Amino acid sequence: MDEDNGDTLDTVDPQDPEAEVLALRGALLDAEFDLAQAKARTLLVLVNGPDGAGKGEVLNRLCEWLDPRSVDVLAYDLTDAEENRRPPGWRYWRDLPRKGRIGLIVGSWYHLALRARALRQTDRDGFARSLRAINEFETMLDREGVTVVKIWLELAPDLSAKRFRAKRDRSSGPGRTLVREWAEVDRRKERMRLVEAVGTMVEASADSPQPWVVIDATDPHRRDLEVGRTVLAALRAPVPRKPRAAKPPAKPRRITTGPSALSWLDLTQKIDKSGYEAALDAAQNRLFDLTQGKAFRKRGLICAFEGNDAAGKGSAIRRLRGALDPREARVIGISAPTEEELAHPYLWRFWRRIPDRGQTVIFDRSWYGRVLVERVEGFAAPDDWRRAYAEINHFERQLTQGGYIVQKFWLAIDPQEQLRRFEARANTQHKRFKITEEDWRNRDKLPAYSVAVEDMLALTMTESAPWTLVAANDKRFARLKVLQTLADRLEKELG
Amino acid sequence: MDEDNGDTLDTVDPQDPEAEVLALRGALLDAEFDLAQAKARTLLVLVNGPDGAGKGEVLNRLCEWLDPRSVDVLAYDLTDAEENRRPPGWRYWRDLPRKGRIGLIVGSWYHLALRARALRQTDRDGFARSLRAINEFETMLDREGVTVVKIWLELAPDLSAKRFRAKRDRSSGPGRTLVREWAEVDRRKERMRLVEAVGTMVEASADSPQPWVVIDATDPHRRDLEVGRTVLAALRAPVPRKPRAAKPPAKPRRITTGPSALSWLDLTQKIDKSGYEAALDAAQNRLFDLTQGKAFRKRGLICAFEGNDAAGKGSAIRRLRGALDPREARVIGISAPTEEELAHPYLWRFWRRIPDRGQTVIFDRSWYGRVLVERVEGFAAPDDWRRAYAEINHFERQLTQGGYIVQKFWLAIDPQEQLRRFEARANTQHKRFKITEEDWRNRDKLPAYSVAVEDMLALTMTESAPWTLVAANDKRFARLKVLQTLADRLEKELG
Repeated sequence: MDEDNGDTLDTVDPQDPEAEVLALRGALLDAEFDLAQAKARTLLVLVNGPDGAGKGEVLNRLCEWLDPRSVDVLAYDLTDAEENRRPPGWRYWRDLPRKGRIGLIVGSWYHLALRARALRQTDRDGFARSLRAINEFETMLDREGVTVVKIWLELAPDLSAKRFRAKRDRSSGPGRTLVREWAEVDRRKERMRLVEAVGTMVEASADSPQPWVVIDATDPHRRDLEVGRTVLAALRAPVPRKPRAAKPPAKPRRITTGPSALSWLDLTQKIDKSGYEAALDAAQNRLFDLTQGKAFRKRGLICAFEGNDAAGKGSAIRRLRGALDPREARVIGISAPTEEELAHPYLWRFWRRIPDRGQTVIFDRSWYGRVLVERVEGFAAPDDWRRAYAEINHFERQLTQGGYIVQKFWLAIDPQEQLRRFEARANTQHKRFKITEEDWRNRDKLPAYSVAVEDMLALTMTESAPWTLVAANDKRFARLKVLQTLADRLEKELG
Repeated sequence: MDEDNGDTLDTVDPQDPEAEVLALRGALLDAEFDLAQAKARTLLVLVNGPDGAGKGEVLNRLCEWLDPRSVDVLAYDLTDAEENRRPPGWRYWRDLPRKGRIGLIVGSWYHLALRARALRQTDRDGFARSLRAINEFETMLDREGVTVVKIWLELAPDLSAKRFRAKRDRSSGPGRTLVREWAEVDRRKERMRLVEAVGTMVEASADSPQPWVVIDATDPHRRDLEVGRTVLAALRAPVPRKPRAAKPPAKPRRITTGPSALSWLDLTQKIDKSGYEAALDAAQNRLFDLTQGKAFRKRGLICAFEGNDAAGKGSAIRRLRGALDPREARVIGISAPTEEELAHPYLWRFWRRIPDRGQTVIFDRSWYGRVLVERVEGFAAPDDWRRAYAEINHFERQLTQGGYIVQKFWLAIDPQEQLRRFEARANTQHKRFKITEEDWRNRDKLPAYSVAVEDMLALTMTESAPWTLVAANDKRFARLKVLQTLADRLEKELG
């Protein structure tokens, strides 16, 4: 019919470059079609290289070769005003394409790390640490169904400088599309450091599941073909098998050793009704003033509430929310993920809710669902929930390093108190408190949940994002404990 | 059990104010639970009034009474940097809660309209026009499952000023939450104009399905109760029945009169192969330069492509996209809506893709789906697609008034050419071109589609957002026509 439909004859004459391009295009479109149909993973293609090597041209070529409807071009520069109000990784999470789609990225997370090294804002050790953090991030992406293809266009420095100038001076036309990443790296020493850092980066990835692909950019035609083949290979690579979620053992065992944290908690703690209202009011006033103060404008507060069913998370959260300016605080209830959330890595739904500076987000259930309900109920495979502890620590570290105050609460009640509350709820008129079959079933799993909670506390209790265990048999005690703990924490953090 | 569970006894002693609050709270929580379960509509509560009437307190109270997990507090001020890069309505669409949720709004769309009138940036006629545009917007929301409750807190001017000062001077505590909207409206004349404009606004809404509820704010306790009752009534109001989508008639009839626009189109137009490449290249260069120019930085381009199956939308779009900087252009393929999109009004998925200033978005199929496929296939009820023409015009008017260039293309081929392409595709090796049963079925509906297209052209052909009919039997002709039309349009628009 017409040239748009390409040609996928399996026998292409290697002497005929045009036939080769046509065959490659046809194959790319087919593979892209399969990706979009299967919706099993996202493909990210990072296009990097010196200015003048043809990042813009490669981008253009891929856009031309692929069906644009399932492609997102994501271009990052230095962070802008909105991005500066969030942690560094936030913008990549914000734009992460859903499964079935392809993201073409210029100015990836490597750009800022390389730039800092070239300009000597970090030393070699600091750069190595950046690479390890990126590696952690990409490994997690890979296991969550996001394949990362990293392309470095290589070109001799004098040639790339010459080409860059030539393109800049060309008077018109699409060929002029320039991606300029290294304008600031212009002194000889800086350029040398950049070259060295690129070498380190490429070498460090050699043994990883996602090594850098270095492509010679001397001949633009061959460069584009090589890029196309690299993308095609990634599209055709078999989707890594998701570990199978098996029925969890009836009596799960801890994966950590050491004493039980929960058993230290005295659940009988209670406070008297007299004085409660005044103490609550005082704690709320402290929280309001702390979150309105100048020091908080540059920070932000992220709270995660977990706990036994009927432990009173909701009522504690309401007291906390009541202490804050409603325009600057959000409560996010976490339940079964939506279709959109399932099409992304599990941490995505939390990343997209990270508050602006000076604001508060309260999660009613949280990212810990992966190592609690998903572990206990067998929704996540053991391989998946086991790796989550480190991923969660990495996630929280990014938040705290970004200046956020992260506070996690576990509200505990004993089985007798839970039974009492369930029975009371069964008789209540309020629909929102109606007890379902599932709640009763979960009750049978209390011992399994305890095991999961002990592991969670042992593996994610960090200094910068601490857990506070709250004895919640007495609701008043629990609420005051939550509010006072938070006020103390804010006071400490805000100096 | 505890005070958190409220009390919903139907017989509350009206002399006991505490019991009344408890009953109201219980009822609110139950109604909110039903809303969240049914996921049939969104409730927006607009809280407005003079500074000092207690907008912040009312907000706080509603947050306390409702389950915060299904509540979004949306506070708008004058537009910020990000919002300024989009049309005025964009920020409200961006934040629109999904069905099953409640949005509490301060600084609603009325705020800017009233402010402009008070500060005399608009005259009475301009203000009346604003009110009519808002009314159009809210009517559309209502029919799309978004209930808008508009509350005006009324308080004598001297009393509100006094309260405002008192609250501002209070030293601490949550009670201090202030919503200050009218700081600039401080001269007597301006205040008078504001009062008059509020009167006009309230009166104009009296006969509408969503009239303003004016609540006396003198006594804060009664004010809050009245607000609570208003919200409860809205939550309890029966969900308006969605018009039933019926099987469409086999031979649909035009709802407009007048000559056929399609019959004017000479489908035999073609151009010669020689000279095509050069002409295409020239058009692409023009487009690149126009979209890179300074004048375009303050604008933005939105293209909608519609057309017969196999008319060549995809290949025309690829030529267009190839002319633009890939970092500043996106192609959005529109197919069946996702769960998230279905939980919002049908225009939401397009609003959220409106580009930043200086950028381009190309829709491969568009909001016209409602009056094309949804009409012809009976996915939308007649009442729904019939109102869509005016809603679409209103949508596009907001874009063009916001400075965007909107261009719509209909690519037409004749049935013989379509058949030829279908048969060619059936034999192609490319998966993306495989013909499905549905494609053949759609072919039988060609006459029905023609009727829908004629109506669409007659009702949505506007000067600021024009349709261009493209004869697409010859692909080269079609592509050149699209690119040249766009380049001419941009040239005209950018001066």
